[in-house]
Amino acid sequence: MLIALFPGDGIGPEIVAEAKRVLDALAIDGLTYEDGLVGGAAYKAVGHPLPPETLDIARRADAILFGAVGDPDCDALERHLRPEQAILGLRKELGLFSNLRPAKVFPELAHESALKPEVAGAIDLLIVRETNGDVYFGEKGFRTTAEGYREGYDIMSYNEAEVRRIAHAGFQAARARRGKLCSVDKANVLETSQLWRDVVIAVSAEYPDVALSHMYVDNAAMQLVRNPGQFDVIVTGNLFGDILSDQASMCVGSIGMLASATLNGSGQGLYEPIHGSAPDIAGEGRANPLATILSAAMMLRYSLNLPEQADRIEAAVAQALRDGARSADLGGAMTTVEMGDAVLAAL
Amino acid sequence: MLIALFPGDGIGPEIVAEAKRVLDALAIDGLTYEDGLVGGAAYKAVGHPLPPETLDIARRADAILFGAVGDPDCDALERHLRPEQAILGLRKELGLFSNLRPAKVFPELAHESALKPEVAGAIDLLIVRETNGDVYFGEKGFRTTAEGYREGYDIMSYNEAEVRRIAHAGFQAARARRGKLCSVDKANVLETSQLWRDVVIAVSAEYPDVALSHMYVDNAAMQLVRNPGQFDVIVTGNLFGDILSDQASMCVGSIGMLASATLNGSGQGLYEPIHGSAPDIAGEGRANPLATILSAAMMLRYSLNLPEQADRIEAAVAQALRDGARSADLGGAMTTVEMGDAVLAAL
Ligand SMILES: CC(C)[C@H](C(=O)O)[C@@H](O)C(=O)O
Ligand SMILES: CC(C)[C@H](C(=O)O)[C@@H](O)C(=O)O
Repeated sequence: MLIALFPGDGIGPEIVAEAKRVLDALAIDGLTYEDGLVGGAAYKAVGHPLPPETLDIARRADAILFGAVGDPDCDALERHLRPEQAILGLRKELGLFSNLRPAKVFPELAHESALKPEVAGAIDLLIVRETNGDVYFGEKGFRTTAEGYREGYDIMSYNEAEVRRIAHAGFQAARARRGKLCSVDKANVLETSQLWRDVVIAVSAEYPDVALSHMYVDNAAMQLVRNPGQFDVIVTGNLFGDILSDQASMCVGSIGMLASATLNGSGQGLYEPIHGSAPDIAGEGRANPLATILSAAMMLRYSLNLPEQADRIEAAVAQALRDGARSADLGGAMTTVEMGDAVLAAL
Repeated sequence: MLIALFPGDGIGPEIVAEAKRVLDALAIDGLTYEDGLVGGAAYKAVGHPLPPETLDIARRADAILFGAVGDPDCDALERHLRPEQAILGLRKELGLFSNLRPAKVFPELAHESALKPEVAGAIDLLIVRETNGDVYFGEKGFRTTAEGYREGYDIMSYNEAEVRRIAHAGFQAARARRGKLCSVDKANVLETSQLWRDVVIAVSAEYPDVALSHMYVDNAAMQLVRNPGQFDVIVTGNLFGDILSDQASMCVGSIGMLASATLNGSGQGLYEPIHGSAPDIAGEGRANPLATILSAAMMLRYSLNLPEQADRIEAAVAQALRDGARSADLGGAMTTVEMGDAVLAAL
């Protein structure tokens, strides 16, 4: 099985290296690796954030372990050359439409949240975000209005096939958890959302065991602050999912701990920490690698069908935390490598 | 000066009645009032959530004091007949493009927030949300894709004139506060946002005394949880403003305390509490009228140019809280009328 390693920018190489050490320690038979350039690193080396060689590795791989992209040197580039295009391009080219972001507090870290410990401690939710459609990938551009004003526009849309497949992903995730699915939209204003809601309701007939509810996105943003413990699985579109999943991860408090997966219909997946490339601490060996290590665990579970090995990694991370492993972002002083060592010791 | 009173649905009539008592107590010369039907109440009475008679009153009025709209009986109606259309219609028909939502914690209520008291206690921000454009008012509908799938779509757009006027509103608000303006967009993905950002930067040349920053909406949703005290004024589009302003108000904790104004270019404004119609407690006399009373204060300040009277109301509300006035939502047992009495006593 082929794993593509795309470390990317900033702290990406440091944190992916630790995840690779953990994977190596599991000594899984038949895993091979190929490295690829993405993001600002790829732009600087070959002039494009997602070069054809990288895309080729990605297509052949069973899974992609991704660090982070984002480089202040690239801020002034045209949009299609900016580091973020690597992630948008991979999602689109590989049909990675189902972005899974679990948000759960590790008891040792509940105090890190800006929320009261009893509120943050109750968080155990999964956001299932669609990542192939919506206003992200519709026609967009600039035009001139009748009055002669310059105007920017982006078409938001979802069709029933797109909604159906992400709705199934949401219901299945809910079924494997606590059986509650909340679909978030803005159906009181948007026709895209009205179609979304109609299709989710239609699909729900196949999941009588899952309790479906609907929430407007503005209310969801409120409820994620007021009482995030009320949620099990949230399913939503690309744009609302972008906002709400970042909000939810910050509610957990320790953003250096949160992993994500983005899957297509054939089991391929891209796995990455939800935090960014942290250019301010890049190269200093101080980044927390745990979110990337947990992303590797998700990879074993979802793309490589190795749930026991995934469990082992997750248990080792929890143990390392109980043993007191703390990088700077968690209020400690351990280096990236020492955090990796702590997980290896617990394995 | 003519004030339109549009109580609307649910608790709307109860809370607007208290605000009216407070206005009466100020004995301001030359104020006249006209009542109008909006929302589900209007639909039930005359078949439309924003009847022509109501719109006519609104156009003639100097200011609108609005309760709330929203009625579960109307959930199954077609979108253009639902209660929310009253608010969308008034915004559009009167050109009310600048929605101002201050979020600030009253010291007595800091513990009500789900955020830690030290985090919530630092909140003192104003969201300036554009409410005449964006994906709310673009072309929208349903169509069939080439593959034969039903698709919903909504066009998001902003032109330079629209962005310019709300940018000015944001800069002016920042100038009158702590001189910091954060513009929120999603310029890494949306051309609408790219135009937004370009125009905001152009307008900033006229406000050298205001410190302008930019933030992506996903990051803004995180920062509003992590450290909302960092913000002074946030200026953003209709959709992002909908989400972030609700999130910010929940960060404050006591949503029954938060007022809002929506202004057009000629000083007309609509004033309403940010909370909803609360159908579950409608008619029970238990709703908290303070957000509506504070909205009346905003009305005196922004549309009627009576800042001293506005100050008096705000001081009286703060005093009532210090004196222990607490409705059910604030953990107390006082009725709507008793809360109004407490403000009148403090006036
Ligand atoms: C980098 C950006 C384009 C991307 C997105 O908006 O999807 C990111 O915020 C994410 O959530 O993965
Ligand atoms: C009722 C709804 C259409 C409205 C909006 O989305 O603007 C409301 O949420 C608001 O924020 O005033």
